[in-house]
Amino acid sequence: MMFTGLSAFPLTPLTDDSVDEAAFTALVQRLPAAGVDSITAVGSTGSYAYLSAAERARVIRLAVEHAGQTPVFAGIGALRTSQVLAQAEAAQSAGAQALLLAPVSYQPLTDDDVFELFRTVTAEVSAPVIVYDNPGTTRFTFSTQLYARIAQLPRIASIKIPPPSTDPDAARARIQEVRDAVPAGVSIGVSGDAAAATGLLAGADAWYSVIGGTLPDPTVAITRAAQRGETEQALALSEHLAPLWSLFGEFGSLRVTAAVAEQLGLAPKNCLPLPILGLDDDARARVAEALKLIEQNQNEQVV
Amino acid sequence: MMFTGLSAFPLTPLTDDSVDEAAFTALVQRLPAAGVDSITAVGSTGSYAYLSAAERARVIRLAVEHAGQTPVFAGIGALRTSQVLAQAEAAQSAGAQALLLAPVSYQPLTDDDVFELFRTVTAEVSAPVIVYDNPGTTRFTFSTQLYARIAQLPRIASIKIPPPSTDPDAARARIQEVRDAVPAGVSIGVSGDAAAATGLLAGADAWYSVIGGTLPDPTVAITRAAQRGETEQALALSEHLAPLWSLFGEFGSLRVTAAVAEQLGLAPKNCLPLPILGLDDDARARVAEALKLIEQNQNEQVV
Repeated sequence: MMFTGLSAFPLTPLTDDSVDEAAFTALVQRLPAAGVDSITAVGSTGSYAYLSAAERARVIRLAVEHAGQTPVFAGIGALRTSQVLAQAEAAQSAGAQALLLAPVSYQPLTDDDVFELFRTVTAEVSAPVIVYDNPGTTRFTFSTQLYARIAQLPRIASIKIPPPSTDPDAARARIQEVRDAVPAGVSIGVSGDAAAATGLLAGADAWYSVIGGTLPDPTVAITRAAQRGETEQALALSEHLAPLWSLFGEFGSLRVTAAVAEQLGLAPKNCLPLPILGLDDDARARVAEALKLIEQNQNEQVV
Repeated sequence: MMFTGLSAFPLTPLTDDSVDEAAFTALVQRLPAAGVDSITAVGSTGSYAYLSAAERARVIRLAVEHAGQTPVFAGIGALRTSQVLAQAEAAQSAGAQALLLAPVSYQPLTDDDVFELFRTVTAEVSAPVIVYDNPGTTRFTFSTQLYARIAQLPRIASIKIPPPSTDPDAARARIQEVRDAVPAGVSIGVSGDAAAATGLLAGADAWYSVIGGTLPDPTVAITRAAQRGETEQALALSEHLAPLWSLFGEFGSLRVTAAVAEQLGLAPKNCLPLPILGLDDDARARVAEALKLIEQNQNEQVV
C-alpha cells in the first residue's frame, strides 16, 4: 500500500537562487537507502510554492531518477486552478506516482472553492491525489465534513492531516473521527513531526515528514517501531529527537530542517528561497547543539 | 502629490481563464473620467497574485495606455524575492509610476524577512514603492516598529494600512501614531472601503480603494468631501454605500466587487480566477438589491 509508513519530504536547496541539483540529488539518494516508504518531492519542505514550473518539473524528474524503487509523490499546489492543472500534468510526465494538493490561498477560500478545486483536478489527472491540509501555510482550515466531501471524489488516496493531539486518547479519537468520515481505503497521514509517533500509534497510516527528508534513519526507526505496535520504543525514539522538536516549535520546521541540512553539509548555507532567511548564528549554534544531544541520545540507546 | 486622494483598484476580469482585455480597458477608462487621483493596476483587487508575469505586464501596459494623465501604480508582490524583482522591472518597463509591494507569504515570514525583502527591492528599483499591509491576504502582520524600519529605506513613498477603527478618535490616534513613526513625506493611505471616509477624515492622505476601481464616481465624491473637511457630507456619502459595506463584511470585498461589475455589465460572469468562485445566485440577488438601494440613496441626496 503506497500511502502508508514514512513519506520523506526532502528540501529543495537553492544556491544563488537556483536549484542546487547536486545537493538535492544527494538528499534524495539517502532516502531509499534508509528504507523510507515514499518520497514527496516539492512538498512544502521542498519549497514548491516558490519554484517556477520548470524548476518543479526538473526537481521531480531528479527525484524519480534517484529514488530507485521508492515511489515519488509531488506537490502540485498553486494559487490558480489552471496552474494546478498544468503542474499536475508536468508532475505526471516527470514520473510522479501521486500528487499532493494543498489549497494554496491569497484571497481566503471558501469550502466550495476548495471542493471545486479538488473536483476539477481529480477529474483531469490519472495519478492518485493526496489532500494536503496544512493550515499553517495555506491558511485554509478543512472541516471534517469537507474531508468527507472531497474524499468521495475519484483518485483521492490519502489525507494529510495537521498534527493530532499529543494526548494518545485524543489523537486516537481524532484519527477515528476522520476515518469514519472518509471511504475505506483512503489513508490518513499525519504531519507535525513532533506528534508523529503519537499519531502513528493512534492509528494513522502514514507520516508525512519534514525532517524525514533530511534525517531518514531515525524517522524510519520511529515509523517501524510504531508499525510494530512498540509504543514505548516509538515514543522513546521520538523523544531522542526532542531537541529538534523544541526548535521546530520556536523557529518553524522548515528553517530548522534547512539549518540541520546545512550543518550536516547536505545543503549550501542559506539554502531556502528568499525572502525566507536562514536562522541567525545564535539559532544555528543551538541547532548544532541539538544535533549533538541527539547523537548522544542515540548512542546511549545502543549501549 | 502622487500618493494622496483616491487610488482606484480595477479588477482584472478573466474570461475562460484569460485576461478579458476589453473589459479591463473599459474599467480603466472610467477612472480618469471620474477624476480618480491614481489607478492601481494588478493590486489584490486586480488578482495580481494569480496572474502570470506576462499577464501582469500586459495588464499594466493596458492601464497605462488608457489612464490618460492619471498615474498608474502596479502590484509587484510574489512569493520569492527574485520574482518580485522581475515583476518590478517589468512593471517599470510597462510604465508604472509606482510599485505596490505586499509581503506575500506561504511559509510565515518574520519581520527580518520582510525588512530584507523591502531593502532588496528598494535598492534595485527606480520607482517609488508603496508598502502594502494587507494581513487578510498576506497573513503577515506589520508592527508600527516595522513600518518605521521600512519607511527609512529609499523610495518608500506611502504605506497602505489596514482599515482603522470606525471610531473617529481611535482612527485619528492610529493614523497619528503611524505618522509619528515614519519620515515626513511618507503618505499614509487607508484600505478597507467601509472605514475609508473615517480614515480620510482622521488624517489619512490617501484611500486605496477596492470598490473605487468599479464605482469611481461615489468614491471620488467621498474623497473630495473628506478632503474639504466636510465631515457630515463625507460620512453621509459613505453611508449611501452601506448596503455594499454590509455585503463586503459577509462575502469579502473582492467577490462582491466582481459581482457588482458583472451586474453592471462591466465584467463577464465569473470573472475571478478559479478557484475563487463567484457569488451564488442568492448572493448575487442581494448585490443587485444593494445597487438599487444605493441608487435610491443617491437620488434622494440629489433631491
